[in-house]
Amino acid sequence: MTDFSPKNHFQPINLFEYEQLAKKHLSQMAVDYYSSGAWDEVTLRDNRAAFERVKLRPRMLVDVSDRNLTTSILGQPLQLPLLIAPMAFQCLAHPQGEVATAQAAALAGVGMILSTMATKSIEEVASVAHQSNAVQWFQLYIHKDRGLTRTLVERAYAAGYKALCLTVDAPVLGQRERDKRNEFALPPGLHLANIATISKLDISHEQGESGLFTYFAQQLNPAVTWRDLEWLQSICPLPLVLKGILRGDDALHAVEYGAKAIVVSNHGGRQLDSAIASLDALAEIVAAVDSRIEVLMDGGIRRGTDILKALAIGAKAVLIGRPVLWGLAVGGQVGVSHIISLLQDELNVAMSLSGCTQLQDIDFSLVKSVNI
Amino acid sequence: MTDFSPKNHFQPINLFEYEQLAKKHLSQMAVDYYSSGAWDEVTLRDNRAAFERVKLRPRMLVDVSDRNLTTSILGQPLQLPLLIAPMAFQCLAHPQGEVATAQAAALAGVGMILSTMATKSIEEVASVAHQSNAVQWFQLYIHKDRGLTRTLVERAYAAGYKALCLTVDAPVLGQRERDKRNEFALPPGLHLANIATISKLDISHEQGESGLFTYFAQQLNPAVTWRDLEWLQSICPLPLVLKGILRGDDALHAVEYGAKAIVVSNHGGRQLDSAIASLDALAEIVAAVDSRIEVLMDGGIRRGTDILKALAIGAKAVLIGRPVLWGLAVGGQVGVSHIISLLQDELNVAMSLSGCTQLQDIDFSLVKSVNI
Amino acid sequence: MTDFSPKNHFQPINLFEYEQLAKKHLSQMAVDYYSSGAWDEVTLRDNRAAFERVKLRPRMLVDVSDRNLTTSILGQPLQLPLLIAPMAFQCLAHPQGEVATAQAAALAGVGMILSTMATKSIEEVASVAHQSNAVQWFQLYIHKDRGLTRTLVERAYAAGYKALCLTVDAPVLGQRERDKRNEFALPPGLHLANIATISKLDISHEQGESGLFTYFAQQLNPAVTWRDLEWLQSICPLPLVLKGILRGDDALHAVEYGAKAIVVSNHGGRQLDSAIASLDALAEIVAAVDSRIEVLMDGGIRRGTDILKALAIGAKAVLIGRPVLWGLAVGGQVGVSHIISLLQDELNVAMSLSGCTQLQDIDFSLVKSVNI
Amino acid sequence: MTDFSPKNHFQPINLFEYEQLAKKHLSQMAVDYYSSGAWDEVTLRDNRAAFERVKLRPRMLVDVSDRNLTTSILGQPLQLPLLIAPMAFQCLAHPQGEVATAQAAALAGVGMILSTMATKSIEEVASVAHQSNAVQWFQLYIHKDRGLTRTLVERAYAAGYKALCLTVDAPVLGQRERDKRNEFALPPGLHLANIATISKLDISHEQGESGLFTYFAQQLNPAVTWRDLEWLQSICPLPLVLKGILRGDDALHAVEYGAKAIVVSNHGGRQLDSAIASLDALAEIVAAVDSRIEVLMDGGIRRGTDILKALAIGAKAVLIGRPVLWGLAVGGQVGVSHIISLLQDELNVAMSLSGCTQLQDIDFSLVKSVNI
Ligand SMILES: Cc1cc2nc3c(=O)[nH]c(=O)nc-3n(C[C@H](O)[C@H](O)[C@H](O)COP(=O)(O)O)c2cc1C
Ligand SMILES: Cc1cc2nc3c(=O)[nH]c(=O)nc-3n(C[C@H](O)[C@H](O)[C@H](O)COP(=O)(O)O)c2cc1C
Ligand SMILES: Cc1cc2nc3c(=O)[nH]c(=O)nc-3n(C[C@H](O)[C@H](O)[C@H](O)COP(=O)(O)O)c2cc1C
Ligand SMILES: Cc1cc2nc3c(=O)[nH]c(=O)nc-3n(C[C@H](O)[C@H](O)[C@H](O)COP(=O)(O)O)c2cc1C
Repeated sequence: MTDFSPKNHFQPINLFEYEQLAKKHLSQMAVDYYSSGAWDEVTLRDNRAAFERVKLRPRMLVDVSDRNLTTSILGQPLQLPLLIAPMAFQCLAHPQGEVATAQAAALAGVGMILSTMATKSIEEVASVAHQSNAVQWFQLYIHKDRGLTRTLVERAYAAGYKALCLTVDAPVLGQRERDKRNEFALPPGLHLANIATISKLDISHEQGESGLFTYFAQQLNPAVTWRDLEWLQSICPLPLVLKGILRGDDALHAVEYGAKAIVVSNHGGRQLDSAIASLDALAEIVAAVDSRIEVLMDGGIRRGTDILKALAIGAKAVLIGRPVLWGLAVGGQVGVSHIISLLQDELNVAMSLSGCTQLQDIDFSLVKSVNI
Repeated sequence: MTDFSPKNHFQPINLFEYEQLAKKHLSQMAVDYYSSGAWDEVTLRDNRAAFERVKLRPRMLVDVSDRNLTTSILGQPLQLPLLIAPMAFQCLAHPQGEVATAQAAALAGVGMILSTMATKSIEEVASVAHQSNAVQWFQLYIHKDRGLTRTLVERAYAAGYKALCLTVDAPVLGQRERDKRNEFALPPGLHLANIATISKLDISHEQGESGLFTYFAQQLNPAVTWRDLEWLQSICPLPLVLKGILRGDDALHAVEYGAKAIVVSNHGGRQLDSAIASLDALAEIVAAVDSRIEVLMDGGIRRGTDILKALAIGAKAVLIGRPVLWGLAVGGQVGVSHIISLLQDELNVAMSLSGCTQLQDIDFSLVKSVNI
Repeated sequence: MTDFSPKNHFQPINLFEYEQLAKKHLSQMAVDYYSSGAWDEVTLRDNRAAFERVKLRPRMLVDVSDRNLTTSILGQPLQLPLLIAPMAFQCLAHPQGEVATAQAAALAGVGMILSTMATKSIEEVASVAHQSNAVQWFQLYIHKDRGLTRTLVERAYAAGYKALCLTVDAPVLGQRERDKRNEFALPPGLHLANIATISKLDISHEQGESGLFTYFAQQLNPAVTWRDLEWLQSICPLPLVLKGILRGDDALHAVEYGAKAIVVSNHGGRQLDSAIASLDALAEIVAAVDSRIEVLMDGGIRRGTDILKALAIGAKAVLIGRPVLWGLAVGGQVGVSHIISLLQDELNVAMSLSGCTQLQDIDFSLVKSVNI
Repeated sequence: MTDFSPKNHFQPINLFEYEQLAKKHLSQMAVDYYSSGAWDEVTLRDNRAAFERVKLRPRMLVDVSDRNLTTSILGQPLQLPLLIAPMAFQCLAHPQGEVATAQAAALAGVGMILSTMATKSIEEVASVAHQSNAVQWFQLYIHKDRGLTRTLVERAYAAGYKALCLTVDAPVLGQRERDKRNEFALPPGLHLANIATISKLDISHEQGESGLFTYFAQQLNPAVTWRDLEWLQSICPLPLVLKGILRGDDALHAVEYGAKAIVVSNHGGRQLDSAIASLDALAEIVAAVDSRIEVLMDGGIRRGTDILKALAIGAKAVLIGRPVLWGLAVGGQVGVSHIISLLQDELNVAMSLSGCTQLQDIDFSLVKSVNI
């Protein structure tokens, strides 16, 4: 376990260093599963490159002695415009898995979205929030088995999750070739904590294929359409968030079909390779939505300046994915807390240096796209 | 011979891995002949780079439980919008050469175009199709010897080929410097299977030059013009396809002179180096043709997403070249079948992830060009 | 000490070679402090890349037998359109530190801006100018302690500095991760020569953080706004120069609030990482200012052609930062003099080759931006 | 000496291979002098990159059985749209130096431009042409010593040179840092063959500087302006060619002041570093000149396709520089002849593959600029 006292010179000081260090704490199968993107990983790389193509135009001589980084999403308060993206199998990184993540999120006052594919159960994770009034959402994959799906949704609602985040970019799983090579499966002792109690389903070993790919092909429902959102809304009063939108017209559909927020996302480059970088899709979607619902984004956020750029282009908040896993692997809840506080510090400094004292000050004029 | 059972961990899982593996199965002369492009190989590389410059804008929440990848070209049905490009000397890769390729194509229900420069004869390859009703076209190089040319055309027609694919980008052969260095010639036992029965012509060894370059310079007719298409059409009732068009005005000529389809192609970067990437030429040509005839394209197709992009820009189907040779080298017909099925799987997944259930759903709005 | 006689083959012949050589003369902590940029050093690199994106369109057949490189800034004459940027802690590079720099500047007739954070005092540096009538400005960081700030300003005025250069891009310090790792602090014997006489403040060692970062956080005033410029102007009759402007609207504010010049700068990539390259911000600012006040720029100037480009885009003069430190490290005043004379020679040659005999000839038509 | 018989497998087959091989035949000082560009060699590299940014749009189904590569420049016939650029000190590469080059040019029917700084005399080189009716021009550097300049011009005219090519981009020499490091001077036995007979001037060794740089600074006249062209035209009836134009307005001046042709050139990246690539400057200049005089270009021509691109953009012919020196170093006249014939072959093939049978067919529609 990494020593997090300030004396420790080996403690990472940014998210990239966490990534390097985490790889020493993880099995190769876990590293591959966590870090990889689909096919040639073009979108994975482009998610980052898109941030580098955007330059900042800071304002000077603003009184920045106080900065306020708080915001609200769906009416729920956040200390930072940040949520932890839903990510499967967090116990691969640390025995406390999603619980540790939830604790870190609650401590920092950022949101957390629990994956359907979690290795800690809906209820166990929710119990973290009960003490802290933290913002937790439940991420839903709609299974072919409607009963199972309904049960998941009802449990999430009962457990106190504040929104239902439907992932729409995964009617089938993206082909991540390292997982296929590794014949990815959950190691002994880890289970689909939410599903296992309802059915016998699991991510089992399969010859020449990722067990997760096969699970999706067999269990998830590729037939879900906009109309199914009515069904979802009918079985659960929680606000609906659509994760995985990359086009303005789809964002408009989201508004029409009653979603309360969308997450502009390509699933961290893990689904359709060569899909547009999330940041490159953001402006079009912000324009289409025209403030009727809230727009979040994820994919490639690694620095406070990345958050600033996403907000300048119109996101209300951002999600971070992999860095949380690196934090978890390096130090469990403490590692995730540190990841969040690094981003918070960086955003704080970035806002000070840009003349922004509150998130509303972060306007579109702060960014400029350049060809590099 | 590679073990294609699912147990085999060394089996390639994408076309790039096939390329690596194939190089171990081939003589250096064959590797060089197969992989090289003309001069500095700028176009060879740009064919690939062009695909990376195009990003996808997938649609979500479409019912993609069934995907239909079938199409028709010149009224002939294909299971996939895919044909195997005409490529010379396939017996360099595998003793069954073009026959193995034809078998794989027939099994998969994709088209195959047999090269004039084949190492298996028109009739032998055609016999594969007779059992399977496969779509086979004959690719024609017009020789100076009109009699020889006419005989080739008549034999192709008689053997049941469904179209005549005239390659128009090779009035002389492109200069491929590795072939020149190697003094490329067919090894003992291999012959121009189509020509040998008509004349004594062969690809013989020559000092300081590629034997194929010399063959083209001596035997092929660089004087062919649009008017000669009338002659071709007069001697053969098969629909005429022009392969190697890179300009809108030439595409219009093709329409006017009665071609039924064109292949936007730079011959895989093997003819005029620094010619525009095929994908970059496609939109202009699709616009010029304006649906009057069918537009195919080739050059650099290596992933299912590449097919998706080409179709989004307006191609009716695509051709693949080199990957077929890698498949052939690694595993003969089984290897080629695997190559095709990899592309099929990938296109299947890519369509699912883009909200496309049939090829007609793949519209221009799915793509966006970016500067990288 | 490097031998500067013409015989010495190891003497650097351009600024890049100085950088290499200097690294051998400096402690790792000093190298890191001098060379690093904030966070991922994107802006640091982009400052240079921006110059490479601009191409020159030289004029021919102009009589260039005489070149006049002189100009004036704020009415003060310069032999070159060049000033030495304010840089802290120059005694890290050489025992004579800021005094050596001032001597070199005075000898060459270029301007020098003394940093608030200097390791030689305002008065000691000023004494260099008294003999030479050199152009010296004082760079101000406004401390929370207004008394201290006022004392600094009054001393600068009394000592004969010709302008007050207020750095506006550092309400907090940029996060330079190498300094954080190194726990940057001034080595024994070095002090804040200007501050030490007024207060006990110093850059002391701190666990897990750059001592300079902490100094800024604790001592500098992040609440300074445009209105505070009135206060500054009220306590000091010197012309006010604002350093660190990157937007046209801020440049307009500068005009309105009475600044006499601005320096387009991102602090050498040391403050807000991924801020726009200075050169990329220049044209917009020149247009906004519309000749009402003088526009300088810094960031990445390493060649005479860089000066030419900045002037062509509309700067009246440029500042150089790090190269001066390299010169200082390699050879004290002689090294700095050599750095300046290399740039002078290069600008001289560049003007000759561009058809410019005086700085006014360097017009906007000399440059062309290209995408690379 | 390289074996040029067709048996020799080590014989270079393109100009890049010549460059590699030549370096083994030359002293380091000569390699450096020949290959280097000014300062950071940005323009040197960009001259090549500019060609790679331009793509070809070939025409198909044109009868290309006969190609005619002949053209005329200033009314003088050329077998190829090619001239050998004026280059100093060719005896550094081969004892026969400029004479060997002239022989190769004459044999191939391409033009040759003899440098003022030749190591073979005006008369000796001219005698090659007398037997062959070759096109030879004399390149002039105007010295401060008008008498010397006049003598050079008169000798060139008397010797039968067909044009006077005034180099206008070198009022001072560009700073080539490798030459400065090497303290470049002519080795014993080599002299300024044209100047030596008139004056004592030579390129002598100098401490810490290129002897050639010093020669230019001391001897060449930086005061030459457009008006001096009248003087030149008054002392010599030869048509005047201006070499080194990079702007449309300068090209217009050239027309007005009576030049008969211009060479768009940045002196192979050896004068003003970061000057625009010649190819990037060409279109603007062709438009400005509007066919009133002939436009040539040089810089980075290494392939037949490069010639095609330059002609498509509007050049009447191109000059090649360094490749000739590589040919000379490798094989004297035979090497230069081979270089020319390689380019001729390549242009021949490139025209065939583009549907061009004569140079007039090479129109602007053949090229397309792309961002890479
Ligand atoms: C290991 C891993 C597992 C993931 N699992 C899920 C998931 O179960 N549900 C989901 O909607 N997204 C999932 N995602 C996608 C993330 O929610 C998020 O969109 C993405 O990671 C953001 O990009 P980033 O990792 O570059 O920050 C997963 C991502 C990773 C890296
Ligand atoms: C080894 C090889 C041989 C080829 N032979 C022919 C041929 O005989 N006739 C023809 O029209 N094209 C020929 N081609 C070009 C292909 O038909 C096709 O245009 C190209 O390979 C497509 O690019 P790709 O290899 O990147 O998929 C050949 C290509 C290769 C690689
Ligand atoms: C080591 C170092 C110390 C600096 N200290 C100061 C300072 O005290 N005050 C200030 O306004 N700028 C400071 N700067 C920024 C410079 O004034 C200048 O903006 C920058 O160095 C210009 O970029 P260049 O180094 O690429 O030439 C410093 C820069 C460096 C490299
Ligand atoms: C070694 C060398 C010497 C040169 N000498 C002269 C010269 O004496 N006069 C002149 O006008 N240009 C001179 N040039 C420039 C060439 O004429 C020509 O513009 C340039 O080499 C073209 O670029 P390339 O080398 O990329 O083909 C010289 C170039 C080289 C490489």
